[in-house]
Amino acid sequence: MIKDTKVNAAILIIGNEILSGRTQDTNTSTLANWLNSIGVKVSEVRVIPDEEKIIVDTLNLLRNSYNYVFTTGGIGPTHDDITAQSVAKAFDRKYQIHQEAFKILEAYYKPGEFNEGRQKMVKMPENAKLILNPTSGAPGFSVDNVFCLPGVPSILKSMLGGLKNRIVGGEPILSHTISLKTVESEIANSLTKVQEDNKDVEIGSYPFFHAGKLGVSIVLRSENQSKIDNCNSQILAFIKEKNIEIVDR
Amino acid sequence: MIKDTKVNAAILIIGNEILSGRTQDTNTSTLANWLNSIGVKVSEVRVIPDEEKIIVDTLNLLRNSYNYVFTTGGIGPTHDDITAQSVAKAFDRKYQIHQEAFKILEAYYKPGEFNEGRQKMVKMPENAKLILNPTSGAPGFSVDNVFCLPGVPSILKSMLGGLKNRIVGGEPILSHTISLKTVESEIANSLTKVQEDNKDVEIGSYPFFHAGKLGVSIVLRSENQSKIDNCNSQILAFIKEKNIEIVDR
Repeated sequence: MIKDTKVNAAILIIGNEILSGRTQDTNTSTLANWLNSIGVKVSEVRVIPDEEKIIVDTLNLLRNSYNYVFTTGGIGPTHDDITAQSVAKAFDRKYQIHQEAFKILEAYYKPGEFNEGRQKMVKMPENAKLILNPTSGAPGFSVDNVFCLPGVPSILKSMLGGLKNRIVGGEPILSHTISLKTVESEIANSLTKVQEDNKDVEIGSYPFFHAGKLGVSIVLRSENQSKIDNCNSQILAFIKEKNIEIVDR
Repeated sequence: MIKDTKVNAAILIIGNEILSGRTQDTNTSTLANWLNSIGVKVSEVRVIPDEEKIIVDTLNLLRNSYNYVFTTGGIGPTHDDITAQSVAKAFDRKYQIHQEAFKILEAYYKPGEFNEGRQKMVKMPENAKLILNPTSGAPGFSVDNVFCLPGVPSILKSMLGGLKNRIVGGEPILSHTISLKTVESEIANSLTKVQEDNKDVEIGSYPFFHAGKLGVSIVLRSENQSKIDNCNSQILAFIKEKNIEIVDR
């Protein structure tokens, strides 16, 4: 049972390298954790190839379905970087040099180094707002509720701080985790009853096997701390009754 | 420019824990690499929550759009494991105990341990075909072109070997990587020309920053080795001309 928060988002990962398995996406987890902390729930993630029609169609669907859309990838200087032109097409805006971005990169590079390849990185949809890049100069951008970030994880991370004031979230989504030395099937029925009693709390059950330990993490998520606390008490009651050990995870 | 292979697939990651950022998905990369090796190209990945209506609708869309669909997650014993019942609904089949799966788990557990919680794991869509699980007993299953696998990465990996003969792929997708000590903007124009000359080869350009090295990996992908070789020669020619160093990555 999922309770939707007031503010939601989709993440759109653009890149053949993720679909081919060559590159392991980590931006979803980075963005989702950060969005949760500012009260935005990620409702959907899609990974799509570097193909204009697919990007345009997917973007138009997602931006009309969710409060925010965050794209990653495809804003570099090479032929396979087609996110900016695709966003322009999705919004039916001109794809052109952004004067402010041009000035930023002109100042960033040594004289003569701001070449034609690099100038592609300042072409954006008309009236895009910049997302500053403290790591490698080239800015991301937003158009309406769509925020376009680079694919390189370290650069993406460095740009989130500057974005915070442009995202209006709801109540932060709180979570509490209880890790147990047990297996899921031992607690499945009891946990189902707790979920039925606490329909407003999202209760997840996740087996873990690592560092020689085997167990289950129960994760409670809600915007309301007292609802989490109530749910937690009911879980502590049944694990005490069943003599199940709580462990660190 | 993407060239579609004859056989394609979508991956459907089912799980709130991925959307919340708590868990880093690694199954996409595992599945995509394995599928490539047997000639199946992953065209799309979606991550969706543990909600029946969303699972049913997404599954019906994807299974009618692609040759194969692989789902991960939601086949355990707890209340948030609703993949099997959702697949049954998507195919309009009964959701019931699978006799063969029942026998497998009855034999797997000690007498008396095959409890009600565990019995949930043998409820599947009518006439589902089992996908054997050499790690932890509980099988996955397939219905038509939809293959349902668990979310725990080590268990998922252990089940792929047994699946291979049930997937009919096309030509394996070959790839070749050239890593260079340069930045993307130095090679962007030359690479664009090579892509225009080799429309059948997917050419990706990926900057890397790690272990103190900074560079760009160019990845060539096609089912045809001689097309990759031709493309490779053109790239080697321009990097020689530009005096760019090839590096290990």
